[in-house]
Amino acid sequence: MAVENGKADYGIVPLENFYNGEVRETLDSLTECSQTKIIEEKVMTIVHCLGTLKNSKEIKKILSKDQALEQCSKYICENYPNVKTIATSSTAEAVENIKEKAMTDAGAIASEEALKSSGFNILDKDICPKNKTRFIVLSRKISEKTGDDKTFLVIHPPIDKSGILYNCLKTFSDSDINLELIQSRPNREKGYYFYIELSGHKEDERVTKAIEKLQEYLDPKEEYPNTIKILGSYPNSHWKE
Amino acid sequence: MAVENGKADYGIVPLENFYNGEVRETLDSLTECSQTKIIEEKVMTIVHCLGTLKNSKEIKKILSKDQALEQCSKYICENYPNVKTIATSSTAEAVENIKEKAMTDAGAIASEEALKSSGFNILDKDICPKNKTRFIVLSRKISEKTGDDKTFLVIHPPIDKSGILYNCLKTFSDSDINLELIQSRPNREKGYYFYIELSGHKEDERVTKAIEKLQEYLDPKEEYPNTIKILGSYPNSHWKE
Repeated sequence: MAVENGKADYGIVPLENFYNGEVRETLDSLTECSQTKIIEEKVMTIVHCLGTLKNSKEIKKILSKDQALEQCSKYICENYPNVKTIATSSTAEAVENIKEKAMTDAGAIASEEALKSSGFNILDKDICPKNKTRFIVLSRKISEKTGDDKTFLVIHPPIDKSGILYNCLKTFSDSDINLELIQSRPNREKGYYFYIELSGHKEDERVTKAIEKLQEYLDPKEEYPNTIKILGSYPNSHWKE
Repeated sequence: MAVENGKADYGIVPLENFYNGEVRETLDSLTECSQTKIIEEKVMTIVHCLGTLKNSKEIKKILSKDQALEQCSKYICENYPNVKTIATSSTAEAVENIKEKAMTDAGAIASEEALKSSGFNILDKDICPKNKTRFIVLSRKISEKTGDDKTFLVIHPPIDKSGILYNCLKTFSDSDINLELIQSRPNREKGYYFYIELSGHKEDERVTKAIEKLQEYLDPKEEYPNTIKILGSYPNSHWKE
């Protein structure tokens, strides 16, 4: 919102985690913006560790941010099947809570640095291997073409036609445009928003024409606002490779 | 898991909320099951209320289960923009925490009954209107045809072909099968699982043939297990109507 209303030049928010999938709050917020564009993607490797206080006994509960608990759920199930998980507002808060309350029966999932700097014992390192999160950089400017770009758009079909998603995908397939991500979110009515990330810059002729064709199919008289909203074009980081 | 390993005859889990969309834990768990089938869907209207202790002052924090906080995020932003939200493991726990610690600066989001039975004041009723959650009933049996059924399946494309989802949707479109839900989840490798709910029972000839055609396209030599897994056929409740 700070980028949208001009209080900040740039913002950075998580879009997708390798294990958890898309970040819903980000998708929902992007739908509400009109000025804000995605100008870049940045990938960060996330190394979760499990730590306890030095004098701790058997672990009966594990504290961490909800997303971190989800990402590590396989590890927790396999290694601490009977432990209670408690969500905190950040991984740092998990560490602080345990320290402040001198909880000797609790573990925290956080980064190695956060655990060490609070004097915790590290019981296990990188408990959710290969974990990474894709962040997007937001701005009110637009990124220029680099020749290897992606475009992110949100489609809000004005009428609940049957087979809408199929026809959207067909338009891109017919234009030989590769899709990198497809997601849907309920629109708080009976329908859905569809989020599509495709290969190519929005100024590439192939992309421009496909989007025109899609607009023609979904809302030929342009009666509805934001039937197709382009959320930005930006260089492809090939983050999953 | 209780249904899967025979410890329970039936289970019931949430699949989708009108506001939040699909429940990821349910989709991920269904993928891991081999015996468990969906035999019925049940829709529950969810009426969230905001309550406080009788002697409470200005609200500085709101406690509730994370999903309830998400569902009510619009209401909270509009009415309590500067309030801190705190996730608890259930809505009941939010009410108990406030009562136990005699928090006079906190509100709980819960059902009217839960708030009243703990002697709370109700500040606002039904703060997330039209809210409902679709639950699914699980069993190791299979539901019989009723003539108005749906089938839920999860597709795990063995090879990362381009345009896989498009071709899956094309198969159903060509067979005149209507799709009710499409979702994707990362598969903890580079690919995705696709969840599809379609109109028709798995024993309907049209559905059987479309699934055979899809299998032929995705994995013609049947080299991979669970390329297409049918998670059940069950009566259509038309829950969004």
